[in-house]
Amino acid sequence: MIARRIRIHLASLFLLIISIPCAYAQTDPLPSWNDTAPKKSIVAFVEKVTKEGTSDFVPVDERIATFDNDGTLWVEQPMYVQLAFALDRIKQLAPSHPEWKTTQPFKGVLQGDMKAVMASGEKGIVELIMATHSGMTEEDFRKIVTDWFASATNAKYHKPYNQCIYQPMVELLAYLRANGFKTYIVSGGGIEFMRPWTEKTYGVPPEQVIGSSIKTKFEMVDGKPDLRRLPEVNFIDDGPGKPVGINQYIGRRPIAAFGNSDGDQQMLEWTAAGTGARFMLIVHHTDAEREYAYDRKSSVGKLDKALDEATAKGWTVVSMKDDWKKIFAFQ
Amino acid sequence: MIARRIRIHLASLFLLIISIPCAYAQTDPLPSWNDTAPKKSIVAFVEKVTKEGTSDFVPVDERIATFDNDGTLWVEQPMYVQLAFALDRIKQLAPSHPEWKTTQPFKGVLQGDMKAVMASGEKGIVELIMATHSGMTEEDFRKIVTDWFASATNAKYHKPYNQCIYQPMVELLAYLRANGFKTYIVSGGGIEFMRPWTEKTYGVPPEQVIGSSIKTKFEMVDGKPDLRRLPEVNFIDDGPGKPVGINQYIGRRPIAAFGNSDGDQQMLEWTAAGTGARFMLIVHHTDAEREYAYDRKSSVGKLDKALDEATAKGWTVVSMKDDWKKIFAFQ
Repeated sequence: MIARRIRIHLASLFLLIISIPCAYAQTDPLPSWNDTAPKKSIVAFVEKVTKEGTSDFVPVDERIATFDNDGTLWVEQPMYVQLAFALDRIKQLAPSHPEWKTTQPFKGVLQGDMKAVMASGEKGIVELIMATHSGMTEEDFRKIVTDWFASATNAKYHKPYNQCIYQPMVELLAYLRANGFKTYIVSGGGIEFMRPWTEKTYGVPPEQVIGSSIKTKFEMVDGKPDLRRLPEVNFIDDGPGKPVGINQYIGRRPIAAFGNSDGDQQMLEWTAAGTGARFMLIVHHTDAEREYAYDRKSSVGKLDKALDEATAKGWTVVSMKDDWKKIFAFQ
Repeated sequence: MIARRIRIHLASLFLLIISIPCAYAQTDPLPSWNDTAPKKSIVAFVEKVTKEGTSDFVPVDERIATFDNDGTLWVEQPMYVQLAFALDRIKQLAPSHPEWKTTQPFKGVLQGDMKAVMASGEKGIVELIMATHSGMTEEDFRKIVTDWFASATNAKYHKPYNQCIYQPMVELLAYLRANGFKTYIVSGGGIEFMRPWTEKTYGVPPEQVIGSSIKTKFEMVDGKPDLRRLPEVNFIDDGPGKPVGINQYIGRRPIAAFGNSDGDQQMLEWTAAGTGARFMLIVHHTDAEREYAYDRKSSVGKLDKALDEATAKGWTVVSMKDDWKKIFAFQ
């Protein structure tokens, strides 16, 4: 009798232990997604690759998911956040650079003449980036970036930039991680511009951030080792650079990739070309009211060829307007 | 009475659960190390940084440990393993390159005249590396490396190279990981030469391998995306390149670093210069009988300035002869 009672008691204990993960699984992990095709295809993919004993099963080690950042995880309009940072920084540094008053593209920035800035072309943009992103140590740059994020806000929402992130994508990142995925950011943006805040914002630690970079140099200053940021491009993590960056940093091919523009096309192609189950998704900006509507003709986040390829190959295309119940946590 | 018995029963169950990790902790995690100062300092460091509530405690996320490979984790004598690979590959490719019969350094390799090879200097070595490491896709290179490792053996031990690894260091890697550390390889060797076997050999997955690299290019061949290896240096992960590589790949400063030569000096300096508890270790090759004895005058794995700095700054120096009970698992 006693033994039986103990058995029952122990059985309840085990049921309790088992029921905790079950209860968790029954909660919708993607509450900001409408129950439309994209959500269903995401869930179907995750269930497929995590089901042991099937031919689609993927071991945890190989569950690599890569996410573009600008326009895929956070707002890239009316201008890339990093460009806003560079412009603010030019204004801040201007007093020590009197020559900027008469030299483009700096003059344009200081006079708020963005047409003149854009007329300076890629060369001008690189000049702006180098003037604002190099010269200091990595440690100092991290502080500059952190300080800027503490006060800067998006022009449309008047919210700090790292609140202007897509709630459905934040849920997706967490859902994938809860299913054993390692989530990476693979962005054309600067790697050291992202690392100071991605862990807190997206749950993506610095070592899982891949991005564009400038060269750095190890140096000893008064017996203290430093990494100095040099005004020289090291790597451009965009377009065909994304598979290169992924291979360089991860050394494995992703099984799932998420982007929103032609700059992500090769990352999705590279992901799609692997063997076994694959998942490729494009975020299509279709919501002029809650966010922005743009694609084939946009100068920021142009989505043209990748949209055609997504359609042709049956990749998942998310319409922000139709497939997302909520866009931002603050809305 | 029944309730009391159940309580006792449950208490035993909990004791059993609790006793499993305790029993594990009581097993010596570093059995191939003698109970000399290095082992004691390693254990003291790990216990210190993992003890919550103390000022030395380091959160799991920040427990980054970086290991050199050649001479730190595996044998680098009588020549770097990757050089042995390059020489074998030259011989294998020679039939398609009749011009190599009369051109140095290839001629020297084919005639077994290493003096002539060395006389070709750094330029010659780079030529050998490019001729053997570039031109193919990443996927093909991985296969070439894997095939080579399946048959090549070390000249002294007549064992496959990935058995010529230091058992005490393998135990150390596992011990650190069991204590929440993320273990990285940071090697002057080629990143794609290491990645195919480091996970199986050391428990270090591809995304935690940092090394030297050549440039790669994304290309579409008959609708299939490939990464082509180009004959152009991308990054040299040695000496002052190691902190640069660590910052680029990890974006965090290690709290522990392990090396054996002057090429590791800056990695150890960079690690030492962080705030909080730090651990720097140099493997000193002092065992001519069981392995090799070399340091200040060696052309491979020269240890001179870093040994002086280790002594001056109180970094841990392991004498292989005195501090390691066993060097290889096969001995």
